[in-house]
Amino acid sequence: MVVIPVKLPSQSYEVVIAAGGRYQVGSYLEKLSNIASDVPLLIVSNPKIWQLYGQDIQLALKKAGFKSAHCVLPAGERYKTLKTLQKIYDAALAHRLERRSTLIALGGGVIGDMTGFAAATWLRGINVVQIPTSLLAMVDASIGGKTGVNHPQGKNLIGAFHQPRLVLIDPDVLKTLPRREFRAAIAEVIKYGVIWDPQLFSQLEALPRLDDHRYISPEQLLEILERSCQAKVDVVTKDEREAGLRAILNYGHTLGHALESIGNYRLFNHGEAVALGMIGAGAIATALGYWSEAEEAAQLQLIQKAKLPTSISAKLDHSDIMTLLSSDKKVQGGQIRFVLPKGIGQAEITDQVPQDIIAQALAKLCSVVAT
Amino acid sequence: MVVIPVKLPSQSYEVVIAAGGRYQVGSYLEKLSNIASDVPLLIVSNPKIWQLYGQDIQLALKKAGFKSAHCVLPAGERYKTLKTLQKIYDAALAHRLERRSTLIALGGGVIGDMTGFAAATWLRGINVVQIPTSLLAMVDASIGGKTGVNHPQGKNLIGAFHQPRLVLIDPDVLKTLPRREFRAAIAEVIKYGVIWDPQLFSQLEALPRLDDHRYISPEQLLEILERSCQAKVDVVTKDEREAGLRAILNYGHTLGHALESIGNYRLFNHGEAVALGMIGAGAIATALGYWSEAEEAAQLQLIQKAKLPTSISAKLDHSDIMTLLSSDKKVQGGQIRFVLPKGIGQAEITDQVPQDIIAQALAKLCSVVAT
Repeated sequence: MVVIPVKLPSQSYEVVIAAGGRYQVGSYLEKLSNIASDVPLLIVSNPKIWQLYGQDIQLALKKAGFKSAHCVLPAGERYKTLKTLQKIYDAALAHRLERRSTLIALGGGVIGDMTGFAAATWLRGINVVQIPTSLLAMVDASIGGKTGVNHPQGKNLIGAFHQPRLVLIDPDVLKTLPRREFRAAIAEVIKYGVIWDPQLFSQLEALPRLDDHRYISPEQLLEILERSCQAKVDVVTKDEREAGLRAILNYGHTLGHALESIGNYRLFNHGEAVALGMIGAGAIATALGYWSEAEEAAQLQLIQKAKLPTSISAKLDHSDIMTLLSSDKKVQGGQIRFVLPKGIGQAEITDQVPQDIIAQALAKLCSVVAT
Repeated sequence: MVVIPVKLPSQSYEVVIAAGGRYQVGSYLEKLSNIASDVPLLIVSNPKIWQLYGQDIQLALKKAGFKSAHCVLPAGERYKTLKTLQKIYDAALAHRLERRSTLIALGGGVIGDMTGFAAATWLRGINVVQIPTSLLAMVDASIGGKTGVNHPQGKNLIGAFHQPRLVLIDPDVLKTLPRREFRAAIAEVIKYGVIWDPQLFSQLEALPRLDDHRYISPEQLLEILERSCQAKVDVVTKDEREAGLRAILNYGHTLGHALESIGNYRLFNHGEAVALGMIGAGAIATALGYWSEAEEAAQLQLIQKAKLPTSISAKLDHSDIMTLLSSDKKVQGGQIRFVLPKGIGQAEITDQVPQDIIAQALAKLCSVVAT
């Protein structure tokens, strides 16, 4: 078991990584002074995850004397909307949630983001506990308090910062995670290696395969989870509200968001889009002399080892991508902001990338061939 | 001109009360370091207020070098919904608002609450400036950072705390405020007298009439505004997130919200419902020995002087009201919480009111006859 403390001005909490942890959720919650046991908890999940793990959570809560209700939402990024959010609000009302009540997000990033946002905005803020079930949510979305839903024209445009009371990660549930989802999450793990933790980067280089959890031992997986979560916690702790440093976590995301959106969140999932975004940002970094061609190649190699996409279809219109890039929420004063690596383990934010360098990187993305 | 500083851990700002202040909005904003002038501001208003004062604000902004866009929403509490909120989000996207951008709420409480909530949740939080145009919004909603929209089954169930960068009150705009709205706001002014400021209570007692601004001199009005805003600021400063004290501002609101909701937000407006709620809570306070019959009568006299309703139609079903009361968001552990006056100028929160005392107060509300 690994416990990573998160100390923030707004709220401190722990990230607990424990195999089989889902069976202990009740006792973890019991230890928290701010989780009321005389009012029901509301578990929010999606149909598949609820079927797989809903009962485990319910029983574990019951064992510790907590009553719970649940609310099952349709799965998928396209349901991460104000309209779906309304279903959580309706359930909160139906189960008479109070200011001291707690929502439990049991699922991937979509469930975590929506449940977190519902908790941020129901009665102007109630407790939320994150139990991420996808690798992506474990290493990224569940930590740091970013919550929200999508606007039809852009991801996460509507949201709030709302820190959880606890993040409980049970690596055992990754056994049921589809391969494509696992790979996608590895993109974010590679990201942490590139922008923050050179040791994690080396660890990934040493692994023979990155495309499925079967090829990674439980010990190696635990270390990957720990180092990735620690990287996220380090950055978030230094900059809770994304005033500066935290933006480096958006490495690969400027272009990634545009690609996700242009593919209607179906062509590329989040991690795949981020992998492509990192290849694009990596190319820009090389063009600007931020890092070496060898480092760019090392990044590409990890992405290839995870069997993530390394090129975009020529069918995607470059000018559409450019338009989307400039409507990204990270745009400041009309300038597109990029996070660029300065060698392995460091990153910098800049809005001074010439348009032609961006265009070249896009062109390169069309020609990179996966091995 | 009166300036009331609001010092909060999350954000400090000023409430500026200045006749003709709307013509100076640009210069007030210029003085704030956190309002960016290189990105457009988005003014949110309703059709009537926009027609009356939109141009004043636009010109004042232009004079100080700010660009602005606007978004006009349908007027009325029944439009304070997630669906209307979507229109602000759409405008924010259309005008490419950034994280450093500012929303300006120009209107009454509905506009202020929705614009505040949109600012709290667009890109996880951007600036908001409140320019309240109703007396109710001036003395209540614009100060303290409560923002939100209604759920079909309850007021303000969806919301966030989000402090404004500035509250600019121009008493001159009250000339165009309908009488019914003016009176309704006086209910909240009376509330501040009862729960916080005995001097304000005496001032109101000394005035010959309270039912229209015409009977109140500009100097008296300024003093009412100042004392009311100061009362709100005092309470909010001591308890930003409504952990305790702040809840006394809900005096008259437990029952008030139920009456507003049961009348579908049309039979009674917010202030009228609060007036009735104060009469109900006042009766409970007398029954429990919290204050004297003379004090209850003094409160009733002010409410009558403001020509606010003092009784509810026998047609309203008491059991419906009781059901609504127990679904109120201020319910804790199934107990209905009331704010009760302990003499003029003090209040206390309790969830220990016996059901029969509540029933008696409701019965009394049916028999009180307006003079």
